[in-house]
Amino acid sequence: MPQAVVLDLVGPHPPLYLGKYAHGLFFSLVARLDPDLAEILHGARKKPFTLTPLQEGNNWVRLRFSSLDDKLFHTFLTSLLQIAPDGVPLGATPYRLVRVLANPQEHPLVGSATWETLRSAPPLGELTLVFHSPTVFATSKPGGRNRYTPLPEPRLIARSLLEKWQAYSPYPYGAKEEAALLNLFELDLELASFHGLRFHRVQAAKGFLPGFTGEVRLRLHSESVLVREALGRLASLAFYSGVGAKTPYGMGLVVAKLRS
Amino acid sequence: MPQAVVLDLVGPHPPLYLGKYAHGLFFSLVARLDPDLAEILHGARKKPFTLTPLQEGNNWVRLRFSSLDDKLFHTFLTSLLQIAPDGVPLGATPYRLVRVLANPQEHPLVGSATWETLRSAPPLGELTLVFHSPTVFATSKPGGRNRYTPLPEPRLIARSLLEKWQAYSPYPYGAKEEAALLNLFELDLELASFHGLRFHRVQAAKGFLPGFTGEVRLRLHSESVLVREALGRLASLAFYSGVGAKTPYGMGLVVAKLRS
Repeated sequence: MPQAVVLDLVGPHPPLYLGKYAHGLFFSLVARLDPDLAEILHGARKKPFTLTPLQEGNNWVRLRFSSLDDKLFHTFLTSLLQIAPDGVPLGATPYRLVRVLANPQEHPLVGSATWETLRSAPPLGELTLVFHSPTVFATSKPGGRNRYTPLPEPRLIARSLLEKWQAYSPYPYGAKEEAALLNLFELDLELASFHGLRFHRVQAAKGFLPGFTGEVRLRLHSESVLVREALGRLASLAFYSGVGAKTPYGMGLVVAKLRS
Repeated sequence: MPQAVVLDLVGPHPPLYLGKYAHGLFFSLVARLDPDLAEILHGARKKPFTLTPLQEGNNWVRLRFSSLDDKLFHTFLTSLLQIAPDGVPLGATPYRLVRVLANPQEHPLVGSATWETLRSAPPLGELTLVFHSPTVFATSKPGGRNRYTPLPEPRLIARSLLEKWQAYSPYPYGAKEEAALLNLFELDLELASFHGLRFHRVQAAKGFLPGFTGEVRLRLHSESVLVREALGRLASLAFYSGVGAKTPYGMGLVVAKLRS
């Protein structure tokens, strides 16, 4: 079941490369209990989790972890709680785990939902997305061209979410429906407006990537039940899956404001 | 030869619908001297001119007019100067033409360049565009779907400019080169960054359209002389042609900051 928690860690100083250290911590925690799972995750093209530095202060950091995979979620959290008494390493420095927030009433970015709940999300004709962390789409082209698109193009947003749904939901669309959805998103999903759109260049994995933050309103010019239902599901998924590339490095944290 | 002038008009009050009135004035001025030309312009899918309200005050307005067509430019200006002594109608109100700025030293948005100058513009690998007035791309889809894209997508910017070049330059690319250019822009022209991107909804022609303003940096990932040369030409053209849809209604006013 898709889940998101927030972790508060206290240490001697803010980590130098929080995103990178958090990523390293995550993989070492998973590998500690389940090396095969860590191996599979390393190889997965679409990762079923996001890991986002939310805030940091002089001697503390706040991380968000979300997952689309039960086994992964439990492995990570169990491993974290097991090592917590000895300190949680971010880079070479041990931090103290002071809090795991898992209740939506404690923090707006935590929560959980069953796949059945996501599947029965109300259909949407319009949708506002708030991109909290820099978001980018990998739009690579033939001939080994690595290209990135740091713009909220509706078809890229929808395609990214649909790919995540197809990869991790127990209720994926069939090939024909998936193709129809991609086509309808391309034809009928329009950017109605945006607000506070900002450009960023952020460190993610080995290099720096461009990305955008801001608020975006999408409108669906279609009465098709299939596509409106899908938009509802994908909007509900976004909170747990993130959008676009490098969500395990803190990119693509998005929250949907729903309006049917 | 591509040309741009700025007109200052003084009247009893600011016009209610400046963009619309300016558009009406333009067509009546052209039709006055050359009804056939006005007819052709009305029917043209890509218009060879832009008409942009730049500023207005309590009792004055400043309009920019740019043209890709010598005959059109001279017809418009001759007709304007002929009627000027009797007042220039914006809507039902006569305004007084107080100034025509045609010297780039008088205003940064006026000037002229021969097609030969544009054709021999220096090749570019990088380009900054400042979108002064709201800009939008008509990205209509099959089945009578009218769609608009108010985002600075590099391929849409390049395609719009190339279409204008092909339609009005005396040195259009051959069909094969044009196809190669469109393909290379699609593959290799990337949005490097943006700054101050804002969303607008503006009245243009009969309805309201979305649009963006702001500064955008494009980068060409290609050493191809053909495509770098084309980018240089299109960047020089943009000042006169504008970018995207509804340039005759004041949309798509863009200025290139060149860097080779």
